[in-house]
Amino acid sequence: MNKTIDFRVTANDGEARTGILTTRRSIIETPVFMPVGTQGSVKGVRFEWLENELDARIILGNTYHLFLRPGHELIGRFGGLHAFTTWDRSILTDSGGFQVFSLSDLRKVSEEGVEFRSHLDGSKRFLSPEISMEVQAALDSEIVMAFDECPPGDAGYEKTRESLELTIRWAHRSKTKFDELARSGGLSERVESRTLNGSQALFGIVQGAGHHDLRSQSLERTVEIGFDGYAIGGLSVGEEKDVMYGVLEHIAPKMPADAPRYLMGVGTPEDLLEAISHGVDMFDCVMPTRNGRTGGVFTSNGKINIRNAKFSEDHEPLDSECPCSVCNRYSRAYLRHLYQAGEMTASTLISHHNLSYYLDLMRLTRDAIKSGSFSAFKKATLARMAENDACGV
Amino acid sequence: MNKTIDFRVTANDGEARTGILTTRRSIIETPVFMPVGTQGSVKGVRFEWLENELDARIILGNTYHLFLRPGHELIGRFGGLHAFTTWDRSILTDSGGFQVFSLSDLRKVSEEGVEFRSHLDGSKRFLSPEISMEVQAALDSEIVMAFDECPPGDAGYEKTRESLELTIRWAHRSKTKFDELARSGGLSERVESRTLNGSQALFGIVQGAGHHDLRSQSLERTVEIGFDGYAIGGLSVGEEKDVMYGVLEHIAPKMPADAPRYLMGVGTPEDLLEAISHGVDMFDCVMPTRNGRTGGVFTSNGKINIRNAKFSEDHEPLDSECPCSVCNRYSRAYLRHLYQAGEMTASTLISHHNLSYYLDLMRLTRDAIKSGSFSAFKKATLARMAENDACGV
Repeated sequence: MNKTIDFRVTANDGEARTGILTTRRSIIETPVFMPVGTQGSVKGVRFEWLENELDARIILGNTYHLFLRPGHELIGRFGGLHAFTTWDRSILTDSGGFQVFSLSDLRKVSEEGVEFRSHLDGSKRFLSPEISMEVQAALDSEIVMAFDECPPGDAGYEKTRESLELTIRWAHRSKTKFDELARSGGLSERVESRTLNGSQALFGIVQGAGHHDLRSQSLERTVEIGFDGYAIGGLSVGEEKDVMYGVLEHIAPKMPADAPRYLMGVGTPEDLLEAISHGVDMFDCVMPTRNGRTGGVFTSNGKINIRNAKFSEDHEPLDSECPCSVCNRYSRAYLRHLYQAGEMTASTLISHHNLSYYLDLMRLTRDAIKSGSFSAFKKATLARMAENDACGV
Repeated sequence: MNKTIDFRVTANDGEARTGILTTRRSIIETPVFMPVGTQGSVKGVRFEWLENELDARIILGNTYHLFLRPGHELIGRFGGLHAFTTWDRSILTDSGGFQVFSLSDLRKVSEEGVEFRSHLDGSKRFLSPEISMEVQAALDSEIVMAFDECPPGDAGYEKTRESLELTIRWAHRSKTKFDELARSGGLSERVESRTLNGSQALFGIVQGAGHHDLRSQSLERTVEIGFDGYAIGGLSVGEEKDVMYGVLEHIAPKMPADAPRYLMGVGTPEDLLEAISHGVDMFDCVMPTRNGRTGGVFTSNGKINIRNAKFSEDHEPLDSECPCSVCNRYSRAYLRHLYQAGEMTASTLISHHNLSYYLDLMRLTRDAIKSGSFSAFKKATLARMAENDACGV
């Protein structure tokens, strides 16, 4: 089989590493943060800004949401999510599994898959490894995720072990269906521009909650099946921070070195630096945009909230070290006013800045890794954040 | 006294005319549509788009809203609304009078001014001609509006006459206070870039509801006081369309030909063309952005609503004749999906297009007037709109 993505590690610094991930649509430097485009739009930020200023090379799309609305059949008839949304750089789609567990009621998990009620209209829907692959084929994302079950962060050993077994069986079925779709051309022949072999790539997901031996087992058996990349699922789902960091330290360095390592749905800037120190390459998280909508601002001096009255006459930008078009132009006072006045442009501008912050943090991180100074960079960056958090900024 | 704005008529076509309005901050071709920036932001559309693509040369700011939040003192300390918002082209501020009547409870009108309850927190506030001038001086807009009383569109003759008398007395007081502030420098010395004499311009407002003789009287006495431009107030406030059109036909051609004529808060594309045919030069209205937030789309073939299910797989742009970046890129199907999914980017993109439509309609109108074909242009444009409206699009 031809290659669907290409991944090369370009520098190592301890366990941390930089790399180049190439898909049929874009060249992505890692470590990379992927803005979340849940429903075919990165909330509040026009694609034009993501392309021209922020230079995001890959975004995430959510299978669960798009499956329910507008439906993958409709998107498929348009030729996939790129054609439907006009975003023509890379897209990674999740499998829908996580949102079934976090957003819908009345889930019924069977060997076959998961029956659930749509959070939109209460209708009964069903997802399985095969259906998830079909949906993701219709979406025509560059990177497809295997369909998994995600146990709660505090799940006991036995429950986690059982869930893991199911996830492994589903991983096999995902791979089988995915290969079948790839051989038959799936729906992907509708897309014209291709630089690699024109097919999608499939990532496997390592589960096991906070249990290190189960994580190891999950990794080993997932690698046996054989995927184009490997993700760590089931973190940042309610467990303590040190549990997450323990799992990352334990499992990330053991993941195949020649494939991208993706930590799903995580997290704060601190979490990203920690994960990178253990060799993780890819991240996605709603924090920059979700915080943007509630006035939360990420800065090089830690997090602030624009609602705070002390910003009401503050002439400074959100982050004086940030090169983004929001920080270049608008004051904290103006942005606070827009927020207080309920103007949607407040969400737009703060989300834009927050994405700029995350993408820039990854740029600085890559530079530090390349120059062999990641450890010092991480320490200094965390210290600045902690200092301000301690001041209650 | 030096000139604060410059206005030259450049072409006439019947009563319709084109002109160049120059303020200390921008050169504005008329007829002009001014996007409404109620609270220091044109809802949903970043200034960058208004400047770089839509090329709006003047926007409106609302004195009532800014007086209540964040307060004109705060904006004044920043050096005015331009410095506070970073919008450095022209701004016209209304007097606050209209919103006092449309948004707040418990208005008590006296000779001195209007006491009202803030719609934000119920606090008692007071506006008068003098206070309105002080607020608008602090906002440092290029064009200041006299403080007026706006009677309901269906007000009887006697009530309208009394209101008109009060408006005339308030116009005198507005002028007196405005001149005093201009002589003392007001707050405007804080702004650095000036091309004219550095002061603000003041427009008077013609009232009189649907009574033509009262409109004439109001115009005559307002012109006697002497302003830099003249506005028609109190239209599109609940009266029948033919009443509004009757007033426009009656009063607009009688307004001073060498000063800008501004129709406040109006209206639909049809209204604009009608008013222009009687010699009006300036317009503002929330319709493009308010409709944008509820899925209403203005197109060269009439109005559509993107919520309509028939657009769910429509590959066409909102308006195939529109040159804007939204129509250049996004399909109706995608925009409908964003709207149905509650994505704020739907509001952003449709508002952007609607403003493009309004600004473009004014460009086409100016071209038609210059080439002496306005009447035919108006007829053809209205016919296309009506045809589609008749089809229930």
